[in-house]
This record gives sequence, structure tokens and C-alpha cells, in this order.
Amino acid sequence: MQRHSSLENAADLAAVAALLQIGAEIGVDQLLDSGGTFSAADLAKVADLPQAGTDDYLAALVAAGLVVDTEIPNRFQVAEDYPDWRYASGYVSWSLSANGPFLDHAREFLVDRDAAARAHQRNGRRVAVSSRWIGARAFYPPIVDRVAAAGARHVADLGAGAGGLLIKLLGQDPARTGVALDCSGAACAAAREAAVAAGVDGRLQVVERTVESLVDDQGPVEGANVVLACFVMHDIVADAAVAKGVLGACRDALAPGGFMAVADAVSYASQPAERKFSALFTYLHASFMSVTLPTEGQWLDTFQAAGFSKTEYVPLGTPGARLFVAVK
Amino acid sequence: MQRHSSLENAADLAAVAALLQIGAEIGVDQLLDSGGTFSAADLAKVADLPQAGTDDYLAALVAAGLVVDTEIPNRFQVAEDYPDWRYASGYVSWSLSANGPFLDHAREFLVDRDAAARAHQRNGRRVAVSSRWIGARAFYPPIVDRVAAAGARHVADLGAGAGGLLIKLLGQDPARTGVALDCSGAACAAAREAAVAAGVDGRLQVVERTVESLVDDQGPVEGANVVLACFVMHDIVADAAVAKGVLGACRDALAPGGFMAVADAVSYASQPAERKFSALFTYLHASFMSVTLPTEGQWLDTFQAAGFSKTEYVPLGTPGARLFVAVK
Repeated sequence: MQRHSSLENAADLAAVAALLQIGAEIGVDQLLDSGGTFSAADLAKVADLPQAGTDDYLAALVAAGLVVDTEIPNRFQVAEDYPDWRYASGYVSWSLSANGPFLDHAREFLVDRDAAARAHQRNGRRVAVSSRWIGARAFYPPIVDRVAAAGARHVADLGAGAGGLLIKLLGQDPARTGVALDCSGAACAAAREAAVAAGVDGRLQVVERTVESLVDDQGPVEGANVVLACFVMHDIVADAAVAKGVLGACRDALAPGGFMAVADAVSYASQPAERKFSALFTYLHASFMSVTLPTEGQWLDTFQAAGFSKTEYVPLGTPGARLFVAVK
Repeated sequence: MQRHSSLENAADLAAVAALLQIGAEIGVDQLLDSGGTFSAADLAKVADLPQAGTDDYLAALVAAGLVVDTEIPNRFQVAEDYPDWRYASGYVSWSLSANGPFLDHAREFLVDRDAAARAHQRNGRRVAVSSRWIGARAFYPPIVDRVAAAGARHVADLGAGAGGLLIKLLGQDPARTGVALDCSGAACAAAREAAVAAGVDGRLQVVERTVESLVDDQGPVEGANVVLACFVMHDIVADAAVAKGVLGACRDALAPGGFMAVADAVSYASQPAERKFSALFTYLHASFMSVTLPTEGQWLDTFQAAGFSKTEYVPLGTPGARLFVAVK
């Protein structure tokens, strides 16, 4: 590996991603991600599996250096660098596991995309978990900073998934309220549970509805100081009328001085540090999901067409991703 | 990523692995791996797919910087650093794609390993392709060096797969002959085709047979100067009697001064540079494939029990892998 010293630990990264993916499959990802201490029995209980099975998995995590002993006998904890590995693994898990049905049936997609898309769908949980591993480091911090700087009292999140970002925002300000909108009933149920667990359920309204439905009823975003949307708008912006309708409804509904913060991807970003992941992301969306990503210019035009007075953007940590901030 | 500067390009590696995995699925991996120039039409022809589909894939490879224009109009070539990325991708593809059925059904394996193993098997081609991407850099060179240094005239390869290593060895010495043994009919057919393509079919005998069958008939290895076995012996060494029978047959059949060169894995290698991938490899074999890997000492004892006079080993480029050289 003369030219790419940074590829030296490819085997490490591949192994960690596979081990964390197994953790997500058996349902211990949240326990590991929490960073708290746990026993072997805790792991089996959370996974709802025979302890012999989770003991072997735990032994593998310890051998890999991802989990370590603590000062308390028989209690374990993730290693200090676990969050770094989890973030890096997010890219691998998203690319290979979440998109596994696309990769495994690539030939079918290249012959007849629509038929293949009906036959081979992604597992929503795998998409959500890997996206969370990436997003917690790459998208959440810059969004949280902007919401805090604006002193936003009421925040709506479109495509909120399990509500992680919004719950984090509510946790930071006891006067803040939020609306989580998602078209998936499972995601909404998970968001309600997570809000209860975090003690913010009294300030979080969860709405099971599509983003497109805002055209006819802007109720869920009405009066928001900030409307967030992470990687959901690219599904609708290809249709200029729908884009204008949805974004226009958000603009109209925003409180005076409010803004939209849209984290999303641009088509084929060409900088050296971005081109590889952006190529995969753009290609998979176009050839496997019938989604044509906009360029930066097209994104800006779309916000302008919806009536926003000013839109600025900054790059996010994920290659090809941008945070668009559109002011009412 | 303060602590792990080498995780900075995790997104790059994940993206490249997914793009190359798609290439393997649509059957253009050999064309890309050859390093030769090709047209968009060539790509469609090799893939046996509509050109519109492979054109989009080619555009993604170019956008990612994995394929570049050449001086000849409309002819392309892989980038100079493609072999580095392919090697690194091998670990990701093996861990996440080849083992995808294990990961996707991890819960079932942890409840009832044998029932899950019957229901969810790996795709042999995915295992073979990712192993080739790793092996071409990590195992082949040290083995080729030893075979060349010994001036070996006749070489047998156990678990030869598509015959890549043996065909390379025959290409280096026009007087060298070889026997490729594999239990898979598909692998044997691929080896025969590859031998014809390389013009060495007159010197390569392909035998469809299990490694265990050598106990009753050592014909395929008779008179070999070197017997090779890459990552196949771990399947049989757990049973001491079978291990002694197979390795003993190889020892007996070797020409005077001959040796076995066995590339294989040890259980839970603990060095920092090895522990992560070795943990995944050991764990997947134990909990998903019912294969308990030996320690270095157990490997050495196994060769000694089979009658070899001296066995030495060196680490290979793959974490947890060793090259055992056992002298008759």
C-alpha cells in the first residue's frame, strides 16, 4: 500500500463494520452506543437471545478491542475510540449492508430497474441505523449549533425517523418544543418511545405523514422557528411543482425570522475528498432508486422558487453532503 | 476523527468497495482487474447487459476516479491506484458482502446455528472474488517467491478455486506443471477456462475432488515438489484424525526435498494490527461456520503429528494469517 497509507487499516474497518452490523442485527446497538457499562447478562437480555450466543459475540468484541473491561468486575464498556469506529463503520454499513439488496441484485436493476426495485427493497432499519451512525457526527452538530444560535423555541423535523436529532434538541433547552414528522409508522413508534425514555414526550408531537402532505396541510410545521430535513428532500425535489409546494408551505408556515435547515446531497461532487462516496451515493440513487440528485445550483434555485429570501450552504462531513440554510 | 487519522477515508473505501462489488455482480470484475483498455461497448458486452445500464455504471466509476480516459478516444482504463483500492475493498467485500447472509440473519445463527447454516448459505462466487482481491496481494507473492526459490517443477494446489495462483506459477516457468484440486465443479470449470485463456492448459490438470479424499487416494498430489493450500485446511484440522490423514498423505506423496505451503488463519491473533480482523474472522468461523481455528502452536503440532520433519511460519499481509512451510 505505497500510495494510500490510509488504506492500511482497511481490514480493521471492514471487521469493525461487520461486528457492529451484527450488533445492530441482534439489537444491542443502542446499548453499545449508549457508552454505559453492562454485564454479559445485560447484553443477552437486551438482545433477547440465549446468553451463550451473546457471550461469544461479546468475546469477539473484546478480542477486537472494541469493548473493554471496567473497574467493576464482570462489567464491560465500549472502548474510548468506539465512537470513531462507529462513525467510520456507518459508511461501510450503509454502502454494503443497507444497500445490500441493490448490490446483490445489481444485474436485475441494470436490466429492468423498476421491476427489480419492486422485488428487492432495502431494510428500513438497516438504512436508519447506518444513517444514524454517520449523521450523529456528520450532520447533527452543525444543525444543533444553528438551532441553538438562533434560540429557536419550536422546531419541526421532516423525515425525523426515530427522532434522535429532535430529542437531542429538546434535551438542550427545557422550553423548546418539537414536531417529528415521518411517513413510517415504525419510525414514529420508535420516536415516541425514545421521547418517553428521554423524558421529553410532553414537548414532542409525532406525526405520521408524508412530506408531500404539507402541500395540503401545513399544520405540522406551522409556527416553527426552524424546519429541519435531513436527506429526505432529495426524494421530492425532482418534481419542481412538488418541491415548490412543499418548500413553499414550509416557508409560509415558518415564524417570522425562521429558517429551513436542509441537510442533503448534491449530484456527483467532484473534489478529491468527496468524489468516491458522492459517486456511489449519486449512482445508487439514480440507477437503483430513481432519484436524480440536484446540483448545488439546482438546490439553490429550488429554494428561491419556493420564495425563500436567501439561501446559503456549507459542506457537511459526509462527502457530497451540504447543509442548506434557507431564510424566510 | 482525532485519534484515527487512518479512518478519514472510510467513506472512500466504503464507496469503492460497493462500486467494485457491483462490478463483480454484473461480471465486469475480470475486465477491470486485467488493467487493459476497454470501450463502453466492451463493458456492456462482457457484462451481457444493455449498454445504457453499463454506461451509467462506467460514468460512476469515472466520477469516482477509479477509471480514467486514455489517449485513445473512447477507451478507458482503471486508475493507477485501482489495485490498491481493490485489495482494500477485498476486506470490505469479504466481511460485508460475502458474509452478508450471516450478518443479515445473525439473530437466527445465535439462536440455532445449524438450522440457520442450512437456511442461509454464502454465495460461493462472492467469497471467491473477495478472497482473490485480498489474496492476490497478501498471499500470492510470498508463496510464488518460495515456489520459485525452490525451483519446483510440479505443484499441486488444494482448494485451488479458479486456479489463479497455479496459473500464475505455470506462467512463470514453461517447464512447470500443476494440479488444481477443488471440490466445487463451478470452480473447476472456471480453472479449466482460465488455463485455456492463459495458454497453460496443457500443463494443468484440474481435479474435482475434496481435500479429504486424499486420505484414500493421494494420486493428485503424487510426486509434487510443492503442495499449496490457501485457507482450506482450517476446515479439516479440527478433527485430528482427518488432519493427520490428509497432511500425512501429502507428506508421503511429496517428491524428495518437497514441502507444503499452507496459508491459513490462527485463532484470535492479539497484536494491535491484527486483533480486529482476526476477531471477525475467528468469530464468524466459530459461530456461523462451525469451524474452530487452531492457534499457531496447534497448527505446528498438527504438521508434526502428520510426520513433517520441520515446520516454520511467517505472518502474511492479512491480519491473523500465517504461511506455514512444512518440509517433508
